[in-house]
Amino acid sequence: MKHKICTLGSHSALQILKGGRDEGFETVLIAEKKRLKPYESFRVADHIIAVDKFADAKDRDDELAAMNAVLIPHASFVNAFSLAEIDELKTPYFGNKKVLAWETDRKKQRQWLAEAGLKLPRIFEKPSDIDTSVIIKFYGAQGGKGYFLAHNQKEFEEKIKQHPDQKYIIQEYIVGAPVYIHYFYSPLTEELELMGFDRRYESNVDSIGRISAKDQLDLNIETSYNIMGNTPLVVRESLLPEIFEMGEQVIAASKKWDSRGLFGPFCLETIVTPDLDFFVFEISARIVAGTNPYIHGSPYSDLRYNKPMSTGRRIAMEIRLAEEQNALERIFN
Amino acid sequence: MKHKICTLGSHSALQILKGGRDEGFETVLIAEKKRLKPYESFRVADHIIAVDKFADAKDRDDELAAMNAVLIPHASFVNAFSLAEIDELKTPYFGNKKVLAWETDRKKQRQWLAEAGLKLPRIFEKPSDIDTSVIIKFYGAQGGKGYFLAHNQKEFEEKIKQHPDQKYIIQEYIVGAPVYIHYFYSPLTEELELMGFDRRYESNVDSIGRISAKDQLDLNIETSYNIMGNTPLVVRESLLPEIFEMGEQVIAASKKWDSRGLFGPFCLETIVTPDLDFFVFEISARIVAGTNPYIHGSPYSDLRYNKPMSTGRRIAMEIRLAEEQNALERIFN
Amino acid sequence: MKHKICTLGSHSALQILKGGRDEGFETVLIAEKKRLKPYESFRVADHIIAVDKFADAKDRDDELAAMNAVLIPHASFVNAFSLAEIDELKTPYFGNKKVLAWETDRKKQRQWLAEAGLKLPRIFEKPSDIDTSVIIKFYGAQGGKGYFLAHNQKEFEEKIKQHPDQKYIIQEYIVGAPVYIHYFYSPLTEELELMGFDRRYESNVDSIGRISAKDQLDLNIETSYNIMGNTPLVVRESLLPEIFEMGEQVIAASKKWDSRGLFGPFCLETIVTPDLDFFVFEISARIVAGTNPYIHGSPYSDLRYNKPMSTGRRIAMEIRLAEEQNALERIFN
Repeated sequence: MKHKICTLGSHSALQILKGGRDEGFETVLIAEKKRLKPYESFRVADHIIAVDKFADAKDRDDELAAMNAVLIPHASFVNAFSLAEIDELKTPYFGNKKVLAWETDRKKQRQWLAEAGLKLPRIFEKPSDIDTSVIIKFYGAQGGKGYFLAHNQKEFEEKIKQHPDQKYIIQEYIVGAPVYIHYFYSPLTEELELMGFDRRYESNVDSIGRISAKDQLDLNIETSYNIMGNTPLVVRESLLPEIFEMGEQVIAASKKWDSRGLFGPFCLETIVTPDLDFFVFEISARIVAGTNPYIHGSPYSDLRYNKPMSTGRRIAMEIRLAEEQNALERIFN
Repeated sequence: MKHKICTLGSHSALQILKGGRDEGFETVLIAEKKRLKPYESFRVADHIIAVDKFADAKDRDDELAAMNAVLIPHASFVNAFSLAEIDELKTPYFGNKKVLAWETDRKKQRQWLAEAGLKLPRIFEKPSDIDTSVIIKFYGAQGGKGYFLAHNQKEFEEKIKQHPDQKYIIQEYIVGAPVYIHYFYSPLTEELELMGFDRRYESNVDSIGRISAKDQLDLNIETSYNIMGNTPLVVRESLLPEIFEMGEQVIAASKKWDSRGLFGPFCLETIVTPDLDFFVFEISARIVAGTNPYIHGSPYSDLRYNKPMSTGRRIAMEIRLAEEQNALERIFN
Repeated sequence: MKHKICTLGSHSALQILKGGRDEGFETVLIAEKKRLKPYESFRVADHIIAVDKFADAKDRDDELAAMNAVLIPHASFVNAFSLAEIDELKTPYFGNKKVLAWETDRKKQRQWLAEAGLKLPRIFEKPSDIDTSVIIKFYGAQGGKGYFLAHNQKEFEEKIKQHPDQKYIIQEYIVGAPVYIHYFYSPLTEELELMGFDRRYESNVDSIGRISAKDQLDLNIETSYNIMGNTPLVVRESLLPEIFEMGEQVIAASKKWDSRGLFGPFCLETIVTPDLDFFVFEISARIVAGTNPYIHGSPYSDLRYNKPMSTGRRIAMEIRLAEEQNALERIFN
């Protein structure tokens, strides 16, 4: 074990570090001084680098490279640095950095998913195009604050007045069940694995259903979509062939844009309609917090591995195999 | 291990085959050619028989019997063949085939549950009998499509106009929490075991609660009940004595109709009211997909077995015990 | 192992007794004769003391003390006896009995949480103070029956007419996601541990969201909050530092009231707003049923212990450690 598994202390760091240990690696945590407690209590880090704020971590690049750390990215990592900063890191990075640019650019991401042949909710370029129920999403809105539904242009025009000067997109509103699909694609075996599923738990949309319709009308409820947590889910077995196919199409499409394409963990965020059509509204091209219910493995990883295989551990396993096969150039950037 | 565990590739096949392996059996999968992927990826089958469509499996009966396969039925299995076809199979079948006829005939099923002393939602023979809120369910409707609520005869008459020529039942609508109870009854030990509970995840009824009441009214939401998946659940411990009793009553009632009665896994589909009354709206007399969250065991099987005991594995364990005790005639058909 | 783990047969007894066994203890169950079945089926008790009703258990105090039993309290235990009766027991009791008085007195409990610096929903002393949406809760109402929302004094006055002579409190209604936080504080290590999270499953509030708004209005739905069960949950990792802090503040505040303060398992019942503020509406100063999904360990106990560590088992582990360190006086009453 030449390398040490390293990540920032947030998001899915507990899972990533525990997974590293389970595969025999030493682990390095970069954590904000005020936020060390959970990592100490759960005893997942062999080395702790305490910083004032995550952005300071880039000043520790030489130190990390010297320790033989490998950085495992997650959403908090990607938020803490610019693409240029990530590009310049000397410390090895698990994943294909080129994918970051596709993912952060809404249009490129959409093009990618469309080329993969996935069903996407329609985007309306201008309000007069609205011909169905839509959801209006604001760029950079924390926790989906202010997102609203409209059912025609008139309602849109009225409601948007409360949001002057905000950039938004108008997206078709698909009524159906949210399902988050967790995959892992191995560049070593060239195999796509299904790691599991989750449902998000968002405040307040996942609890307003506890308020009767009459009370909701009286309360004048406004919905938000701030992620609080995640709950486990298994999906109807007859849908799995299609779910594998969707993941494989995403990988194939990515390889047309770059020879290595997307690899490692990724997530398709979908809405499944009553007719069992999967509409994909986003891709996350790295580990997502929806894998956190499965720190001890999911029903699906239990099937394949017959031992507790979290997505965090699966990442570490890939690094271990690449070390053993002298193939680190296939998984590092 | 004389036999091989065999099932059709859908529904709960992953669980059944993995359970077979965990008990030391070889496994046989009959899968549609286009739907092999999950079974290959999860590596649960020692032998794969690829067919164009499930109905073709009956042509492989001799081959299966020669392999010493034993068929484990699930909903997709029962849908793929007629009762007569199932009856004629030479390959051994785990379970009592006589129960299939009770279960598929709505009136017989209801009589069975009533004789077991369970609380059932009322059925209204004619619209003029409606004296409470009711749900109208259509025969053969895939995914509960079109099911609607009515609160009196007038509303029923109005809404039913949209469904000309469809066969329906008018069932009392019970407001309460859905709970699916998973049992296993062993004819060898004559003991009833509680395997766990789940909640279904249905599109769209399990996500419309995320839409505010005002938006729902604007959207003019229609509900469907298409099963997407399942989520884990534990039930208030003080209710367990009654839950055991309900299962035992179902077994006892079944033995009055046939000496062997129902055995193996079964599920009571219930609604629990705020007064904690269990209303049973259906019985499934075999393994159900609601056990899929527990491929690695449920909190309840952990208590009893202290090792990962899925319902699929429990079936295989029963076959192993029957082989050891030379009692296969008690579990095979 | 000098002691035997003992509890009443309800609530979380299965978990407590299994946990005792997993730590090497013999177990004693006190169960109502009519409610023995689950405990026999799940094989968790080495000794069963069958009583007609729980209240009779206090007549067995000498017998229990002679057996070297230690009582593990849970909600059904605390409901079965008066504080004075609990105080007089000779049989050792795991926990600080002084905390019982703080917890059962709504005002004292509120003072405790306020001194711990937690955010609490406001309480309105008189209807004319109502200046926001409120929930009216009745003392002693089983299953939250009759609880209702009001949005101003006028609506309150109208609705309260249906509840003459009932004692109530008027509490600010916080719209957000319910999260139940499970802690364990060890007086031996003086460390606070996070055991996991759950969501309750209450009939009917957790299923009315399956009914469309229009149908809800037609049905004239009344909500109840009767606990049926619990479902697993993991919480956004960036919230964990605050969650640890909340627990530590509760412990620190308790030590100001009594030198030993609160120890063992406890639960903060919270609502998390879309701005991710935690409002605490209750503390349970002992094991709660929300830990029952984790009989085989939670994602959080998997991190720290790397073996199946339920809260019930954590209690037994603390008793084992206290025996080994001759420190039983720090955990018994």
